[in-house]
Amino acid sequence: MTKKNAFYAQSGGVTAVINASACGVIETARKHSDQIGNVYAGRNGIIGALTEELIDTSQESAEDIAALKHTPSGGFGSCRFKLKSLEENKREYERLIEVFKAHDIGYFFYNGGGDSADTCYKVSQLSEKMGFPVQAIHVPKTVDNDLPITDNCPGFGSVAKYIAVSTLEASYDVRSMAATSTKIFVIEVMGRHAGWIAAAGGLVEDDNIPVVVLFPEVEFDKEKFLAKVEGKVKEHGYCTIVVSEGCHWPDGKFLAEQGTRDAFGHAQLGGAAPVVANMIKDAMGYKFHWAVADYLQRAARHLASESDVEQAYALGQAAVEKAVEGKNSIMPTVVRESSDPYKWSVGEAALSEVANVEKMMPENFISEDGFGITAACKAYLYPLIKGEAYPPYKDNGMPDYVTLKLAPVAKKLETFEL
Amino acid sequence: MTKKNAFYAQSGGVTAVINASACGVIETARKHSDQIGNVYAGRNGIIGALTEELIDTSQESAEDIAALKHTPSGGFGSCRFKLKSLEENKREYERLIEVFKAHDIGYFFYNGGGDSADTCYKVSQLSEKMGFPVQAIHVPKTVDNDLPITDNCPGFGSVAKYIAVSTLEASYDVRSMAATSTKIFVIEVMGRHAGWIAAAGGLVEDDNIPVVVLFPEVEFDKEKFLAKVEGKVKEHGYCTIVVSEGCHWPDGKFLAEQGTRDAFGHAQLGGAAPVVANMIKDAMGYKFHWAVADYLQRAARHLASESDVEQAYALGQAAVEKAVEGKNSIMPTVVRESSDPYKWSVGEAALSEVANVEKMMPENFISEDGFGITAACKAYLYPLIKGEAYPPYKDNGMPDYVTLKLAPVAKKLETFEL
Repeated sequence: MTKKNAFYAQSGGVTAVINASACGVIETARKHSDQIGNVYAGRNGIIGALTEELIDTSQESAEDIAALKHTPSGGFGSCRFKLKSLEENKREYERLIEVFKAHDIGYFFYNGGGDSADTCYKVSQLSEKMGFPVQAIHVPKTVDNDLPITDNCPGFGSVAKYIAVSTLEASYDVRSMAATSTKIFVIEVMGRHAGWIAAAGGLVEDDNIPVVVLFPEVEFDKEKFLAKVEGKVKEHGYCTIVVSEGCHWPDGKFLAEQGTRDAFGHAQLGGAAPVVANMIKDAMGYKFHWAVADYLQRAARHLASESDVEQAYALGQAAVEKAVEGKNSIMPTVVRESSDPYKWSVGEAALSEVANVEKMMPENFISEDGFGITAACKAYLYPLIKGEAYPPYKDNGMPDYVTLKLAPVAKKLETFEL
Repeated sequence: MTKKNAFYAQSGGVTAVINASACGVIETARKHSDQIGNVYAGRNGIIGALTEELIDTSQESAEDIAALKHTPSGGFGSCRFKLKSLEENKREYERLIEVFKAHDIGYFFYNGGGDSADTCYKVSQLSEKMGFPVQAIHVPKTVDNDLPITDNCPGFGSVAKYIAVSTLEASYDVRSMAATSTKIFVIEVMGRHAGWIAAAGGLVEDDNIPVVVLFPEVEFDKEKFLAKVEGKVKEHGYCTIVVSEGCHWPDGKFLAEQGTRDAFGHAQLGGAAPVVANMIKDAMGYKFHWAVADYLQRAARHLASESDVEQAYALGQAAVEKAVEGKNSIMPTVVRESSDPYKWSVGEAALSEVANVEKMMPENFISEDGFGITAACKAYLYPLIKGEAYPPYKDNGMPDYVTLKLAPVAKKLETFEL
């Protein structure tokens, strides 16, 4: 087998553990130096490949690469940049292959969600046709937990743990204050189309917190919602509401709609929490507080789930191991063997079956009234938030996160206009 | 010395460590059972004393009392209820003494901020006059860190750690995304009049994050602010903004003004972050994300500072020890012996000097341009966020916080209308 270099890139919104996957990829590639040469990382994701801005990861020390495992965010930079279809913009795909050829890259590890699985699949197909075959392996990552086949996606477990714990803590707070002050606490969480993160907030029900969850999967019914909240306040004296940013009215309009769209054409959201809080205030007069967790939730490496960190690393590692076994156009997956005790193994899925398929919450995970989660959902979620994988801290009380050197690889090609 | 019962109450907004002070009070009182009988806690703070809703803490197991040390929020309930002045409502003070008399309470431990220090002081004065002397000791607590004399207030160190770490994590996130997506991240933090919490967000400058802090102490200057942000984005590609809820225009109007007021007459705030984010978007077009941490920050026991937990406990303990030594009308304080290495001891302040005095950030803690913190401020802050005092977790991945039994003490008096 000829020794080839590898390319690794991070795609889309970053997470608390995407760097753990990077660590898995790079450490494992270093172990297979007989088959894999250098690992080049894309500066700011796939854009770094198109513009030939490659990072030479061999310039990073073993300590710094190991520290990626406990560092949130995308250590090499990520991007929101979706390659168009082959028909619309073959030029970009051909450029990728051209860059791979110039740098003798035979392995393409792409770490992202649904859109990047699609890109990964196309690169694999096109490189074959162009006579420079590249083994393309997708490493799953998304806080939205919406990739198919894999039991769960690295990144989700940690955000789920953060939201479950934060919702519990804030609920204890409002419980303390409810007699004379705040009776309503609303927390807004991420999840445009799938309510997985919101569901994690629903776990606090098991800690006796009166909670109402608003999912993107359930059309918002104002009357029913207000009645539900009033019932909880009458019974418990207070109520916590977990609202997904994707919560929407029957006509499809988001509660949080701001009217702007991102590079993928997705509506840019924010602000469902104040909408919901004021709605309750107007109807029942209860004093409220609201929080919007936004990036805090997906960046919260300080409260990462141990399951999640282990899986993020393991799938990065598996991607490389499968590549050296000759696999192509696949994605390593998490296979759940059992929930209690939690056992999982690494499986694999064909990218043709992953690309552009969005996994919604199963119907039997949402309670009949649409405002909570079922026992089946809880049994699914708890293993994913299991264990605490704390980062190291410096003496001054701040976490010891790594910032990489990001040494550039010398360019060999002409400039490419994006 | 005659053996008397003690009364303990939590006041105002709760914190991640106010229960650690409760733990210090109750555990220490139990050790002095020769001088202190039962510790009765006020159900929902001082209101529990007025309505004679007392909780018999002797019914709580040693394990549950110990677990308060790692449980956020107010375990006995708190309230936002400020007693009026003696002239305006002597009836309430007399009722307090009446309840104390009925339950043979000779010690009053009041755990709160500036308003409750004032109440504590008045109770001590009035009880003397009414011929039923009660030793009133104030246990400091406030995330706002605005009590005088004490070097810092329990509750602040943990929220400071949470905000510093969360700001760092979210900044790493936006740094990853900035090339093609979000360039601006705004986090809104608590602090109506004093910018101590916002200052903690400014610590990320030492981790090479371009950060702009908006303090309540500095009148908001839109032009200067936008120029500052633009400079940071031009230099670093992105910028993080930490905005205090108390940030205001030169005419005194809060950026976040919602027009409602709480029971203390304070304006109820929220929403400075979206105001600031949209201001930047309108001026420069940068894509933004914003978060409002709200209760998440003050309830975040999962990331409490070890210094803070130790001090919260120590001041509760000292309150009881000083009471059995015969002290009255005082507040135990944190005395800083040195910053590096951090050394502190317990001191005491006369309540007459504490009540209704608000400690602002010293001028030399805010940088000359008004948008950051100085080396002196950092030297003050780091010791307070030092160390991680993690709570225990259950097997299912959730923290093991305690909910007390809250057994009521039989009432002996007529009903009292608030």
